[in-house]
Amino acid sequence: MTGYDDVLVAAERIRGHVLRTPVLEISPGLFFKLELLQHSGSFKVRGAFNRILSAGEVPEPGVIAASGGNHGLAVAFAARALGVRAEIFVPEVTSAVKVAGLEALGAHITQTGAIYSEAAEAAAKRAAETGALTVHAYDQGEVVAGQGTTGLEIMEQTGGVDTVVAAVGGGGFAAGITVGTSAGSASAGGEAASRSVAGSGGASDGAFDGSAAGVGGVAGRAGGPRIVAVEPERIPTLRRALEAGRPVPVEVSGVAADALGATQLGGLAFEILSGPRVESVLVSDEAIVAARRTLWERHRVAAEPAGSAAYAALLSGAYTPALGERVAVVVCGSNTDPATLITG
Amino acid sequence: MTGYDDVLVAAERIRGHVLRTPVLEISPGLFFKLELLQHSGSFKVRGAFNRILSAGEVPEPGVIAASGGNHGLAVAFAARALGVRAEIFVPEVTSAVKVAGLEALGAHITQTGAIYSEAAEAAAKRAAETGALTVHAYDQGEVVAGQGTTGLEIMEQTGGVDTVVAAVGGGGFAAGITVGTSAGSASAGGEAASRSVAGSGGASDGAFDGSAAGVGGVAGRAGGPRIVAVEPERIPTLRRALEAGRPVPVEVSGVAADALGATQLGGLAFEILSGPRVESVLVSDEAIVAARRTLWERHRVAAEPAGSAAYAALLSGAYTPALGERVAVVVCGSNTDPATLITG
Repeated sequence: MTGYDDVLVAAERIRGHVLRTPVLEISPGLFFKLELLQHSGSFKVRGAFNRILSAGEVPEPGVIAASGGNHGLAVAFAARALGVRAEIFVPEVTSAVKVAGLEALGAHITQTGAIYSEAAEAAAKRAAETGALTVHAYDQGEVVAGQGTTGLEIMEQTGGVDTVVAAVGGGGFAAGITVGTSAGSASAGGEAASRSVAGSGGASDGAFDGSAAGVGGVAGRAGGPRIVAVEPERIPTLRRALEAGRPVPVEVSGVAADALGATQLGGLAFEILSGPRVESVLVSDEAIVAARRTLWERHRVAAEPAGSAAYAALLSGAYTPALGERVAVVVCGSNTDPATLITG
Repeated sequence: MTGYDDVLVAAERIRGHVLRTPVLEISPGLFFKLELLQHSGSFKVRGAFNRILSAGEVPEPGVIAASGGNHGLAVAFAARALGVRAEIFVPEVTSAVKVAGLEALGAHITQTGAIYSEAAEAAAKRAAETGALTVHAYDQGEVVAGQGTTGLEIMEQTGGVDTVVAAVGGGGFAAGITVGTSAGSASAGGEAASRSVAGSGGASDGAFDGSAAGVGGVAGRAGGPRIVAVEPERIPTLRRALEAGRPVPVEVSGVAADALGATQLGGLAFEILSGPRVESVLVSDEAIVAARRTLWERHRVAAEPAGSAAYAALLSGAYTPALGERVAVVVCGSNTDPATLITG
């Protein structure tokens, strides 16, 4: 299973290729991790760079990925930065903004299938033919570890939180954050955060010594902060997996389907997100749209629906922090038509 | 003249009322100060809070301001937060988005005059009648000192820069930043930055010891970093003031007129911005529109035209940093219809 040390290695590997996105404390103890300002407009480049750079030599046919959009943009961005060819399969639901973005990055695009899983099948078939390096949207160890670097940064930049709220599609992001905030528990048998990650931070952020976690609020659970894993009610991949005891297919629909529309949770994500630190929370499409509007109108943060789901959990009361609880909300994607920030 | 110590006092006074906006390093040594994420969508709340809180008791008629929009929003925001009445005079050029924002904050609005200076005259007349506390958009010491806290944060959050690039309308913001980055020169006779401002920073940002300024690049000028003061070609209040040796009226037009449309530079700003650390730079409206588009498309930063002017100076080549020069670009306002981020 992907462990904390894998995330530390990923952080070293992708340093300089991805942005250390900023944290904004919008009220005392409530932080936005502004991962939507990341290269390519979402966290996905972290996993993409880690996967591609882990491979050593990339084969002549380059890299191949299937994606509801953000992962495709990320793989195309990383491939261009590293000078390798990228082939991206996207489902027909993908927004015009995202397809245009892929084209601008020089990727070879095939738009096929009604939903993500159909595009993914076509990509897998193509990869078997060409021998291209596959970069999965969530179910690869290097991808999970790459996304987990977001968690490392959150703990360093906030000085520690009790709770991290993050969205779930295929689960790679929330799983990575769960591991990346576990601060040594993988190698120390589940003990509470105590390990210094000084040295993996930027010069301007100071060092996180682990001891700040839980100060002034509810103590994090054993092994790190609570992870509130937020899903749209209309795409409950984690909730159904927890009920069934394994990932199972769900129907995909709703306002966040183009970015959270995995048909089922990834196997790696299930191993991690079925642990005791994780709470599954569902939000309605209406709550997502309202949160997105609030993010723009009150905070001038221009998020896509999927990027607004985590904040929707707080605003709708689906998750209510205790008094003094220190909470980081990850705003994770911004690939959106900005005109819809006001119209919904 | 407003000095560095006034900015330190302002930082203490407004702490908790304004956000410590984040800094994003978009490439090595190039920083965005994301002041557009500030309460009310621009830096203006810094000066507004400092002015109002400096007054001690606010008179019964409350506070009064004239504004192209952002200053009005800021005064209305601060007044609501402090529980006092706000009366705002805005010129007819003010965008519907900004007027709606003022209404939402509970301000009493009078829309009058073709440009800012006419609204300002009407507000001054009204203030003389009612005895309300005036909050000037730029030409008051407390306002300049408040805006200057942005400069303090830039130096702390970046670890020091050689150059700060900021927009000029009435000049209060650029003047404040000039003073706020002078690190003790006001009381120490113009010597280079050497004074610690530890203690005025947040826990998660580390301390700035002044010695980092100039590391790896062109040394800052005596007294602090170079200030590149950027104006639209169609509203050159600083440029004309420098040519004339005093603030003189200019014609106001162009894409940034609703936020940078002061008829002439403030007297306090002239004292500060005519100093040796400041370079006047002009940018075309086309460069501003292009920069705004790049801020959105490449960086997912949703700025208004005035907030994009500083970055336009870099992108257009109006200011070209030397190799290794550490540069902070202040993106200072986001009160805009997001639909126009793509259409221009």
